[in-house]
Amino acid sequence: MDIYEESLKVHEEARGKLEIVPKVKCESREDLGRVYTPGVARPCTEIAKDKEKSFVYTNRGNTVAVISDGTAVLGLGDIGPEAGLPVMEGKALLFKKFANIDAFPICLNTKDPEEIIKICKALEPSLGGINLEDISAPRCVEIERRLIEEMNIPVFHDDQHGTAIVVLAAMINVLRLLKKKPEELKVVISGAGAAGSSIIRNLYNYGFNKIYAFDVDGCLKKKDQESYNSLKKELLEYVNLDDQDYNSLAEALVGADVFIGVSAPNLLNKEMVASMAEKNVVMAMANPTPEISYEDAKAAGAYIIGTGRSDFPNQVNNLLAFPGLFRGALDAKATKISQGAKLAAARGLASLISDEELSTEYIIPSVFDERVVEKVSTAVKEELIKEGLVRK
Amino acid sequence: MDIYEESLKVHEEARGKLEIVPKVKCESREDLGRVYTPGVARPCTEIAKDKEKSFVYTNRGNTVAVISDGTAVLGLGDIGPEAGLPVMEGKALLFKKFANIDAFPICLNTKDPEEIIKICKALEPSLGGINLEDISAPRCVEIERRLIEEMNIPVFHDDQHGTAIVVLAAMINVLRLLKKKPEELKVVISGAGAAGSSIIRNLYNYGFNKIYAFDVDGCLKKKDQESYNSLKKELLEYVNLDDQDYNSLAEALVGADVFIGVSAPNLLNKEMVASMAEKNVVMAMANPTPEISYEDAKAAGAYIIGTGRSDFPNQVNNLLAFPGLFRGALDAKATKISQGAKLAAARGLASLISDEELSTEYIIPSVFDERVVEKVSTAVKEELIKEGLVRK
Repeated sequence: MDIYEESLKVHEEARGKLEIVPKVKCESREDLGRVYTPGVARPCTEIAKDKEKSFVYTNRGNTVAVISDGTAVLGLGDIGPEAGLPVMEGKALLFKKFANIDAFPICLNTKDPEEIIKICKALEPSLGGINLEDISAPRCVEIERRLIEEMNIPVFHDDQHGTAIVVLAAMINVLRLLKKKPEELKVVISGAGAAGSSIIRNLYNYGFNKIYAFDVDGCLKKKDQESYNSLKKELLEYVNLDDQDYNSLAEALVGADVFIGVSAPNLLNKEMVASMAEKNVVMAMANPTPEISYEDAKAAGAYIIGTGRSDFPNQVNNLLAFPGLFRGALDAKATKISQGAKLAAARGLASLISDEELSTEYIIPSVFDERVVEKVSTAVKEELIKEGLVRK
Repeated sequence: MDIYEESLKVHEEARGKLEIVPKVKCESREDLGRVYTPGVARPCTEIAKDKEKSFVYTNRGNTVAVISDGTAVLGLGDIGPEAGLPVMEGKALLFKKFANIDAFPICLNTKDPEEIIKICKALEPSLGGINLEDISAPRCVEIERRLIEEMNIPVFHDDQHGTAIVVLAAMINVLRLLKKKPEELKVVISGAGAAGSSIIRNLYNYGFNKIYAFDVDGCLKKKDQESYNSLKKELLEYVNLDDQDYNSLAEALVGADVFIGVSAPNLLNKEMVASMAEKNVVMAMANPTPEISYEDAKAAGAYIIGTGRSDFPNQVNNLLAFPGLFRGALDAKATKISQGAKLAAARGLASLISDEELSTEYIIPSVFDERVVEKVSTAVKEELIKEGLVRK
């Protein structure tokens, strides 16, 4: 039985992966009177006097909704809300397992961004945060942006920023290992969708300024911007600042220091890797089949290799980011997750590897490194408090 | 410390009453690959082929949302969604405790019936059922009706029907004890709102046809119908069928067999009880202060007394109905909860008391009677299957 068959069996036997259980005693009439009527009237009236007390007398402050519309589930595409549910349940399980956060999975029966925004806003009184998931681009960007603006709890689209935080952590450690400054490295990114855009922003904000991005239409460049959607147009502030006119990914990669792939299978071949600069970095994270296999990248002389897979070194896994990020945001009673908080998360993550430990095969901590959530959450909490993005 | 102080302490110490925990193993990389990527893609694609499989591979079939807008919380009124949350968490806790149902509490930041309807419908793919709670009348009736019509999972407004099912169970046992037929008893009901309306419908459907209802405007009668809202107008099909022109509750109660109160404190006095028929029934359930105290009803010669309180015999508690009702509906994979199912629940509940046990002080089982959920759920499941209100 392969992992897929095993997964099906686990899901069928357990009928899903979560349950919702009491964390207070409810065995007697007296208990009932405390957790329900008549006693419960008291926390209700306290909150009625001051809504913020909902963070004291309910589970709200530890609750996150994992919300999707099922339009971009894993690599499977628009498979619908029912079919997205196993992923959202899995995500909720990881929230509990890794960060002791109570997350409930919600797959919505609408794809209308305005409706999704309305629904998320209506759910606010019950929640400490919202993790958006598997919503197709560019809708996801607009939905997240509006919710961040219009809501008073953290909203975070993991597909955009989760991987991007880990990529930045990896690049911070690449700089440490190579003893370079960000502006010294030429970075070529394949994929300018949800994840790619966030990676580009993170790198630029960190000081990288030689970034070139490719999507299905080729290299992003100002002279083509008329045909771009607003998301892609914005990226022109961060990429191709010297107006290169690359005709292909291969052309851009000649002499490049870093390749980052969040795009499609097999876009990279050995020759392209071999054409890159010395001590180059290849992070091929297309899922499930990467832009180039670990073996081929290795054979072509890649110096540092990152993948999305657990069976090779340097796994870029958003599991390194979102649990600690939300733990920190909830602990801070945050109202937003800022760009600064994402950077703090990446720095915290990178710092877990000491100078002595740092190597080409160890630029990213393991998802089973128990220090990760603590480190990331503390960094995020401190940053959000510093920025004042917290409830009074 | 009284029960209210104790409740506040319990809520503050635990920060709410629920947590969401894994029910599958997730300790190793291999486990991760089964419960999340890559393995989870398999249940997703199975559900994409057939949405109904969401009841096999996810927790959906055991999940109920407890949804409120915070407009009619306990006896506290429109205290807002945040302040309603402790009640919804409590309700969710009871769902788990009594019927092993996973319920998540949702308090919505909108009072607009159309928006509430839209949101509930959008949540359908994640849910096996919806328990509406503490939504003010008459909005609650319209919202529930529309959702029942437009959704394909059971929707049930407990404030309307929960108490009404238990009242019907009590009345079934009153008939057994008195050896009477429903049409022989004159019933006077104080309160024609959410709960009162449902009680009236249940009793009428069971065969009671001498029902008189009162609200703040007095006795419901056809000649006043011009001024009635649609809900109240509909009740004229069930009440005051012989066009009585009672000027007061006191007048209607003379010679009446049954008083049912779901209204306001102290509306009934001893004289009114004394004026009722022999072997009369007084069910005074206004919360927290009833229409007449148990002691006063007793002193005035009430033969059978029911209350909403746990410290007197015959406690009318919706906890006797909703856990078993939803358990049965989920077990049947029901698409609706019908009037027949509510009747089946009441009959099941009533039948738990044997002829030998039946007495004026024991017409309703205890909420701690462990047979209740099993009995109610089986009755409901069988009825819904018989009516064909289940998924194929």
